[in-house]
Amino acid sequence: MKKKLLLSPGPTPVPPQALLAMAQPIIHHRTPEYVEIFNEVREKLKYLFQTKNEVLTLSSSGTGAMEGAVTNLLSKGDKALVVIGGKFGERWAEICHSYDIEVVPLEVEWGMGVDPNLIAETLEKDPEIKAVYTTMNETSTGVVYDIENIAKIVQKKENCILVVDAISAIGALPCPTDEWGLDVVVAGSQKALMIPPGLAFACLSDKAWGFVEKSTLPKYYFDFKKERKNLLKGQTAYTPAVSLVVAIKETLTMIHDEGLENIFHRHDRLARATRAAVKAIGLELLAPQSPSNAVTAVKAPEGVDAQEIVKKMKGKYGMIIAGGQAHLKGKIFRIAHLGYADLSDTFSAIACLEMSCKELGLPVTLGAGIRAAEEIFLAD
Amino acid sequence: MKKKLLLSPGPTPVPPQALLAMAQPIIHHRTPEYVEIFNEVREKLKYLFQTKNEVLTLSSSGTGAMEGAVTNLLSKGDKALVVIGGKFGERWAEICHSYDIEVVPLEVEWGMGVDPNLIAETLEKDPEIKAVYTTMNETSTGVVYDIENIAKIVQKKENCILVVDAISAIGALPCPTDEWGLDVVVAGSQKALMIPPGLAFACLSDKAWGFVEKSTLPKYYFDFKKERKNLLKGQTAYTPAVSLVVAIKETLTMIHDEGLENIFHRHDRLARATRAAVKAIGLELLAPQSPSNAVTAVKAPEGVDAQEIVKKMKGKYGMIIAGGQAHLKGKIFRIAHLGYADLSDTFSAIACLEMSCKELGLPVTLGAGIRAAEEIFLAD
Repeated sequence: MKKKLLLSPGPTPVPPQALLAMAQPIIHHRTPEYVEIFNEVREKLKYLFQTKNEVLTLSSSGTGAMEGAVTNLLSKGDKALVVIGGKFGERWAEICHSYDIEVVPLEVEWGMGVDPNLIAETLEKDPEIKAVYTTMNETSTGVVYDIENIAKIVQKKENCILVVDAISAIGALPCPTDEWGLDVVVAGSQKALMIPPGLAFACLSDKAWGFVEKSTLPKYYFDFKKERKNLLKGQTAYTPAVSLVVAIKETLTMIHDEGLENIFHRHDRLARATRAAVKAIGLELLAPQSPSNAVTAVKAPEGVDAQEIVKKMKGKYGMIIAGGQAHLKGKIFRIAHLGYADLSDTFSAIACLEMSCKELGLPVTLGAGIRAAEEIFLAD
Repeated sequence: MKKKLLLSPGPTPVPPQALLAMAQPIIHHRTPEYVEIFNEVREKLKYLFQTKNEVLTLSSSGTGAMEGAVTNLLSKGDKALVVIGGKFGERWAEICHSYDIEVVPLEVEWGMGVDPNLIAETLEKDPEIKAVYTTMNETSTGVVYDIENIAKIVQKKENCILVVDAISAIGALPCPTDEWGLDVVVAGSQKALMIPPGLAFACLSDKAWGFVEKSTLPKYYFDFKKERKNLLKGQTAYTPAVSLVVAIKETLTMIHDEGLENIFHRHDRLARATRAAVKAIGLELLAPQSPSNAVTAVKAPEGVDAQEIVKKMKGKYGMIIAGGQAHLKGKIFRIAHLGYADLSDTFSAIACLEMSCKELGLPVTLGAGIRAAEEIFLAD
């Protein structure tokens, strides 16, 4: 027997409640039964996003909602500031380019946070910028950006909105949409929301809806106005991914019952324990200054291919962790703490990492990582 | 106890094999395990579409693939002939309008087929038309269009392609993509493919891929070239709806094992039996001339609201049938024979329809519909 443990930053493990919900006979979406389920999802999404506004549900992966957050808000030739410090920042830029949006790139070294002052300066210099597109948790580098302070800057600009890709952040890291004044928050189902990929979400402020009214970029399937109109009837514009909606009702109930504060604290503990363990094992974090509590990115030691660690973890121990993406491939590996994850997952990951490193000939004191993690858990 | 029977034209019942596949722990999509599953899906989709070409898998409902079949094939200002004889023909026109495609509408009375000669005439008159967009099975009216002969006409035009919405047709009605020379065929997961909504498919001919090369309409999430490139590695461009891919592997295996010819014959028998029964009950078909074997649309008798029949069927007997859409709401109801459906479903539907009509005061000879259906089944 070798149990598999999914420790990748999406998809993440799906709890049995949600798996069993998907195994129930399917229901039709144009029925009162479905409307009741969807309205419950709708309310609980507001809790999750910490917002009074509606949260749109789209049947696609998160990228679909990202595309919608460009095509529904901007018009041809508009200018957008895009924070690019990883693969998902790059995605914002790619989408903007696809729709002839002029991209003002704010390049950030992969593994570093972004200085909100740089955003303030750029917006001062260029008052034509209509939107700031940023990632919250850059999954490719394990960095969390200071969205709270970025929002304070963008809020001061009457003609500019802040659009946040919170796909791997929401439900793992504090992201109080209304309190921070985030104009658009985009999320996906397969991260801290604990169900399989296939649903995406978008939450818009009143200011953002004002932009939607003026937007002229073409769109059809990802049409936010059409979705909002249908949402008020407990429906979606097109046939929704019914089984995923039924599943997310279960996980949103779990999130509601555990409580957001407890969930953020759980992610924080698991991530701190993992970071302490990694250092105790003798490895280095990619992002020591602004590490995310959703995923920990670890540098492979000089001369070691990170993919070897990923392969060893999977092949010998059944631990599915992620490698690096783009130019970080082979340089880092990533361990997620996202969603349906607790102490035992963290211990398993650390112990198997210790053994994998040992087997790859690295100078590891077996048990050192676990000890560091235990100290964190005991202290907190 | 009241068992529920889903007889709507999508979503359709999901067989236990697929439900249980979705209840398995989720796997990561960037792994050899997933690639193996997806490659099997890929091959079996070719069998289903009866094509040598690749079939792209998108995570969205069918409408997403329809949008992609506009944005990947055409350029701004292009002209397209759109067959509009129901809600889904209208959708093609709406998508084209959203992207500034000049629509040459071929309006067809709802409930009637389209005369291929009209398409030939229109294409002769206007050689600038670059694409013909049509539905195969117009779900809103229960009509099947003569795609085989439409294809013969469009094939003669070097600079024009035929794009077929076969969302509720493929896997239920014969649609030999290569033999008929269909340039683009679009499908969805929640009809004859027997899994929940959330996956869409698109199959393109070499001629269509030539159009893709020249297309300049904006797109990002539904980017066919990017999907084809990833498909060759057994992957998708963005995180796929993993649980639905795992589920469709099961139903595509069922389809492969039953065999397309047997499946088409099964749908044909169920549909003929239903049509005979409806007439024996004293009701009239909406589309007597070109009825589809996927869904049967029935007119409510003068003075009776079709929604009353739909409500009675559901409320008293647990039979989920569909009402009419748009201006046909209240005028018709629709019984599907799509996907995971057999004799017993048809008998249940007919018997409950007889009782519902009786209870609504219609002059029905109880058992007459069932008798007509039995005669069909016994003869064939």
